[in-house]
Amino acid sequence: MAVMVQKFGGTSVGSVERIQNVANRVIQTVEEGHSVVVVVSAMGKTTDTLVRLAGEISQKPSQREMDMLLSTGEQVTIALLSMALQEKGYEAVSLTGWQAGIETEKVFGNARIRNIHTDRICRLLEEGKIVIVAGFQGVVSGADEITTLGRGGSDTTAVALAAALKAEKCDIFTDVTGVFTTDPRVIDGARKLESISYDEMLEMANLGAGVLHPRAVEFAKNYGVKLEVRSSLSMESGTIVEEECTVENQLVVRGLAFEGNVTKVTVEGLQNELTTLSHLFTMLAENGINVDIIIQNVNENESMNISFSIDSNVLDDTISVLETNRHRLGYESIVHEDQLAKVSIVGSGMISNPGVAAKMFKSLADQGIMIKMVSTSEIKVSTIVDQEFMIKAIETLHDVFELDAREPVAYK
Amino acid sequence: MAVMVQKFGGTSVGSVERIQNVANRVIQTVEEGHSVVVVVSAMGKTTDTLVRLAGEISQKPSQREMDMLLSTGEQVTIALLSMALQEKGYEAVSLTGWQAGIETEKVFGNARIRNIHTDRICRLLEEGKIVIVAGFQGVVSGADEITTLGRGGSDTTAVALAAALKAEKCDIFTDVTGVFTTDPRVIDGARKLESISYDEMLEMANLGAGVLHPRAVEFAKNYGVKLEVRSSLSMESGTIVEEECTVENQLVVRGLAFEGNVTKVTVEGLQNELTTLSHLFTMLAENGINVDIIIQNVNENESMNISFSIDSNVLDDTISVLETNRHRLGYESIVHEDQLAKVSIVGSGMISNPGVAAKMFKSLADQGIMIKMVSTSEIKVSTIVDQEFMIKAIETLHDVFELDAREPVAYK
Repeated sequence: MAVMVQKFGGTSVGSVERIQNVANRVIQTVEEGHSVVVVVSAMGKTTDTLVRLAGEISQKPSQREMDMLLSTGEQVTIALLSMALQEKGYEAVSLTGWQAGIETEKVFGNARIRNIHTDRICRLLEEGKIVIVAGFQGVVSGADEITTLGRGGSDTTAVALAAALKAEKCDIFTDVTGVFTTDPRVIDGARKLESISYDEMLEMANLGAGVLHPRAVEFAKNYGVKLEVRSSLSMESGTIVEEECTVENQLVVRGLAFEGNVTKVTVEGLQNELTTLSHLFTMLAENGINVDIIIQNVNENESMNISFSIDSNVLDDTISVLETNRHRLGYESIVHEDQLAKVSIVGSGMISNPGVAAKMFKSLADQGIMIKMVSTSEIKVSTIVDQEFMIKAIETLHDVFELDAREPVAYK
Repeated sequence: MAVMVQKFGGTSVGSVERIQNVANRVIQTVEEGHSVVVVVSAMGKTTDTLVRLAGEISQKPSQREMDMLLSTGEQVTIALLSMALQEKGYEAVSLTGWQAGIETEKVFGNARIRNIHTDRICRLLEEGKIVIVAGFQGVVSGADEITTLGRGGSDTTAVALAAALKAEKCDIFTDVTGVFTTDPRVIDGARKLESISYDEMLEMANLGAGVLHPRAVEFAKNYGVKLEVRSSLSMESGTIVEEECTVENQLVVRGLAFEGNVTKVTVEGLQNELTTLSHLFTMLAENGINVDIIIQNVNENESMNISFSIDSNVLDDTISVLETNRHRLGYESIVHEDQLAKVSIVGSGMISNPGVAAKMFKSLADQGIMIKMVSTSEIKVSTIVDQEFMIKAIETLHDVFELDAREPVAYK
């Protein structure tokens, strides 16, 4: 039994017409001889509407009741999609999270899947039925409590089901045609990738390429689930995410990610002590401030400067936290620089190509683009540059690392 | 532990503001020292919206998927009401039908409750929590299938829970202040009843007094659950429904029901055979035609006339069915009379008061109102009269049987 898991997000099921379109896509896969399990999100803006309703009642509604409320969204979609398939003459059965045996830990609003009891799904598949599962939700076994999985939850449901059912592939249908070398809405030459590795996808996802949630990618990596990111509105093949990139593996850099609205903050004249770093960043974390790149610099007089990048929107909060704790931290001054951007190159080939970072720095220097901060991992190099040079930097790197498409590729 | 079950219908929870109002009503009962279980319906027009959505996908959607779809309506309400109670500082927990242990037979769309496992509700009540249960829905035990109870389902859920929990009382909150002697929107002198027996309520409900579903009344009667029908928008006490009407039991007639748009059909010259009646009415039933009052009349020549009353809207269908089967039924002619109305008196005191029907007939005759058909039960007499005399008949009977209020009573 060759099982395929297909996940359709909120936009793909946003109207009756789109649900019927999804039904047609599923039927096509069935007709190709697959057993199909479909995972769906809530229709379009349903979740937002429910969140707004709750907000009218309580500023801080209990997370348990939020899960009770929000889990209705996917339940509506599974019923409607099942009806659409039945109307077209196919046997379909919808299952909520608890009916599908998706067990989670007892954490409301952001639960992790612990286990999937696949008996019922397997039985239904053996009976030749199309099984439609509500994404984003599960049940705490023993306690019979409804939980939701948090952001990107439906992707995670699909990947977890694919792992549990040992599915051939897990299709993630979205409103774009795949994973691109960089954002095609900004860079004309952006090219759709035929395939990408889990780690690369993970870096791209964490760097803001929003087609797949990092948690789902991590899950897929851990269980070796082969993913395909593709469009629900077009028939073309998408981007395969898997361990070994057999195609295109000669490319060192696979993609570029970028984001603006970055501010660099430097705390000058800190005491160079063992706990200085942990004090500073624990304090920021406790105040909900997310820090990205960190650079530590020891001065000649043994004092220390620490620079870090943040989203410009949290600059005021950051400075307020630092000033409130000035005595405890014992620094001399704070300076900041805004209107910055982060530009990153991603690719697992970098590990074995030591010159990649150097090539990146040189290309930017050749264009007169000053690098303000650098952060590297095994498969990624991120740089902070002036925001006015962001697009120019991406265009340059896209060109230098030969990511350009030979011909235009459809994005939507 | 004095448990109270309180049920609020769709209108009572139709907006955030109304849900907050319901929360206040519940809190009041809690503050009076009761353990409270609340049963709610879907908000306002939610169910209609979902039914319309399904209709856009399928002319005849599967009943299983309809139950999957519709059961989300109550789930939204329980979550919001729970949040509203928590916001006001009370501990509340919402439960879907399956979480509340409401087991039904495996009949989608119109399931009957088989059993309620009250363990979880009892535990929550013992912990001092307010328990909020989704009305209208249950689960097929073993199969883990979601079912709905059909029309009036939330009333039935409330009554069944009250029976299972041996509750002191089951309050049915609605948009009117109680059960009236007759429709107060039509008859000025209509009076709210302090109490009414199950059987009387059953007849009133079957005769179209829409405040309580007959199925819920029947359930209450079978399990001796004391009901109170009252308004969610006013603090006044409502109407008690119970076995023994201690108050007002001197009254022979308790209420009047009426409906217009009735047509009387007479099939003339039928053969007077053993199976004639069953043939005729089986045929009508198989074609979905609901017949109310039936009168059989044997003529001097041994042939037979049969008259029955129907809703005027199904007259064309009725005549078509009869004409199609003319040969099989072997009648001479069909005549019909429309623009009729049904006027009924209800009261369990009738059984021991043989003159009640006679008094009704005489009162109507005194007003020059001709009775076209009569049907009686132990606690009810129904008559068919010209629709133009319907209101006059009700006013007369309301007066003759001394049902008038001494002073005006609020309806809403």
